[in-house]
Amino acid sequence: MARTTGSHSDITGPRVRAAALQLFARHGYAAVSMRQIAREVGVQAGALYNYTPDKQTLLFELMKTHMEELLEASSVRKSIEPLEALDEFTQLHLNFHAERPDEVFIAYMELRNLGPDNFAIIERMRRRYEDQLEAILRAGVEGKVFQVADTKVATMAVIAMLTGVNTWFREGGRLSLEEVGKIYTDMVRNAVGA
Amino acid sequence: MARTTGSHSDITGPRVRAAALQLFARHGYAAVSMRQIAREVGVQAGALYNYTPDKQTLLFELMKTHMEELLEASSVRKSIEPLEALDEFTQLHLNFHAERPDEVFIAYMELRNLGPDNFAIIERMRRRYEDQLEAILRAGVEGKVFQVADTKVATMAVIAMLTGVNTWFREGGRLSLEEVGKIYTDMVRNAVGA
Repeated sequence: MARTTGSHSDITGPRVRAAALQLFARHGYAAVSMRQIAREVGVQAGALYNYTPDKQTLLFELMKTHMEELLEASSVRKSIEPLEALDEFTQLHLNFHAERPDEVFIAYMELRNLGPDNFAIIERMRRRYEDQLEAILRAGVEGKVFQVADTKVATMAVIAMLTGVNTWFREGGRLSLEEVGKIYTDMVRNAVGA
Repeated sequence: MARTTGSHSDITGPRVRAAALQLFARHGYAAVSMRQIAREVGVQAGALYNYTPDKQTLLFELMKTHMEELLEASSVRKSIEPLEALDEFTQLHLNFHAERPDEVFIAYMELRNLGPDNFAIIERMRRRYEDQLEAILRAGVEGKVFQVADTKVATMAVIAMLTGVNTWFREGGRLSLEEVGKIYTDMVRNAVGA
């Protein structure tokens, strides 16, 4: 593979992250060595340290980037009416997660392998995402369009329900993602008493 | 620790499984060695092979036992009315999983580490569990007490919603398991249009 010297690190950085993502998702963080990642990228193990200080940083960067993209995507909400905002949240969550099976898998499976400081940062980002849904549910309860006993619990229930789609949905299966989206839009509305 | 010779294997077998369960849940299957499990139990690494042929068998046995217990617990259903049967399913799922955080964690996280034959067996058991809920939903749809667009999708949604409780519920937290159970009973009923 020919590369110009100038773009060397620009190209290799993303390839290192892509290889780490795929290997972590397939074998688990603990089972993957820096040497394996280097082999997958096609560089010497030593060269890998030009792009990342260690395996923990690689894991953390993957999880942080995933959460940053999720927060960015979900912050652009067009609707202010609670019911429409809820539908938008449902669609965005399903589409965003369906497109990133490896990232979602790692985000849930490898939390235990983050160092305490890194864990705290990722937890805060997850909390911010949950807060977005909880704000929608609160607005809906205040506006008497939703009936929810506990907005925090309902938030966790809806997110778990939606993320669960990743464990069974396959492109080309019985239902399209659009059909799944319609079914979940109704179920989520129902679950919060809309 | 004094042990009588007769009960040696009876006592050590469960201790091997308990140690494997705890270590797999904390560090992940791939990161745990038979040597570490032996150390935790307090036996020589070689002695471990009196109780289990290998690490894969240990993982499979843990997951199989978990599913057997779940299927046994859920097969004893008192109610035949769909709405009551649904409430019973909700309560049983929540209580059963809340009592077994390590087993639940492993059941989801380590599926990828099962050999193909073992995976197929566990998948079939999971399918049988899902079928129990789907049968309740179908009966409710036929009896016009539930409104569900797709009973298979609703089954996966309800199970994901309920299992998600394990990621945030802590004994001694803001809500008791009983309170959480009441909230989820309503949310699950709502989700299936009851």
